[in-house]
Amino acid sequence: MAPGVDEPSDASTSRLSLYLRALARCEGEGVHLVSSDELAASAGVKPALVRKDLTQFGQFGIRGVGYEVRNLRTEITRILGLDRDHGVIILGAGNLGMALADSRGFNTGGFRTLALFDQDLRKVGGRSRKGVPVRPMRELTRFAKRNKVEVAVIAVPLEAAQKALDQAVRAGVRAVLNFAPAVLRVPRDVTVRSVDLKIHLEALSYRLSRSTESPSKR
Amino acid sequence: MAPGVDEPSDASTSRLSLYLRALARCEGEGVHLVSSDELAASAGVKPALVRKDLTQFGQFGIRGVGYEVRNLRTEITRILGLDRDHGVIILGAGNLGMALADSRGFNTGGFRTLALFDQDLRKVGGRSRKGVPVRPMRELTRFAKRNKVEVAVIAVPLEAAQKALDQAVRAGVRAVLNFAPAVLRVPRDVTVRSVDLKIHLEALSYRLSRSTESPSKR
Repeated sequence: MAPGVDEPSDASTSRLSLYLRALARCEGEGVHLVSSDELAASAGVKPALVRKDLTQFGQFGIRGVGYEVRNLRTEITRILGLDRDHGVIILGAGNLGMALADSRGFNTGGFRTLALFDQDLRKVGGRSRKGVPVRPMRELTRFAKRNKVEVAVIAVPLEAAQKALDQAVRAGVRAVLNFAPAVLRVPRDVTVRSVDLKIHLEALSYRLSRSTESPSKR
Repeated sequence: MAPGVDEPSDASTSRLSLYLRALARCEGEGVHLVSSDELAASAGVKPALVRKDLTQFGQFGIRGVGYEVRNLRTEITRILGLDRDHGVIILGAGNLGMALADSRGFNTGGFRTLALFDQDLRKVGGRSRKGVPVRPMRELTRFAKRNKVEVAVIAVPLEAAQKALDQAVRAGVRAVLNFAPAVLRVPRDVTVRSVDLKIHLEALSYRLSRSTESPSKR
């Protein structure tokens, strides 16, 4: 499971997203050149890590000068595959699915949520607040194939997660974002990324316990 | 913003959470000793990183033998401050707030969601599916102080996020998990962790574009 030597780790590709946010802020502020120190500070990591991460993907910097903001932004966008559109479908039209369907992150920068799917026929035919339609699960395959959907989000309860994943895979989905706290059996050619929001709460707990132990260190 | 030399990074404290999950699985399977290689594989990181992370917090391993599962689990639980209870309040009783209030992660292992707060009086008095009550925003301070709440979750729309944060801080909250895509002004003694779910979609996009470019590498 550990990434090989030649393959960028999940952590380093996720940091590309942070650099992309930082570069967008720079460009919004009219900044043309950025040093790895500035990029590091803006993304909350160490400068050496920025250089190491970027070196894995190519030669972007100019030694002693820094990175050209617009160019690096374009390159990272391309590396992350964000230069093409990704239609997203969400399985499960409960509170979580509805919230994600309308979220900015799931409807900008190459991503667009096309539909929610649910087994509950009382939900089918409805829409999220911003208008994403809820469709019946039995239409999943046809919809996904017709719209060439590759990305699905699993927002169903734990006990329904494996079945939802299997249906998505049969419908041609190749990348899955899983919000159910389930360990899923996944075919080799499908990527699943599970989101564990509790990690963030635990990080906060760590900070609280540190500040209680040694307030002078804060 | 970059962490100092003596201070464990946010990334390494977040990996402690991954190790904790892995140790729980080991203990569930009746495993008493685990090597750093096994722990690394289970958490999806490199073995050297496991040793480096843990060394920052103490001497837990036995050279050539590994880690004693129950002991390490207890130690990490203590380091993360999960050996004491954390009451959580959620600001915003929309779809996202309701989903989080009922989620397993926000109601296990030291965490419990005590209440949702909303400005919308039509929501006040209601409950989430699992029974977490929705209270009016004006009761926030009294409730938080009476229940010694230190952790708040911001699940309001972008434009309401700063106000929600300010109210939480006045109510004594010292750690905030922010789901609004907003850059917040935060007092120095308050920790805010913003959740950017789009990073996960971007990671999937990266995998998809890699597998399209070079299917042989999959």
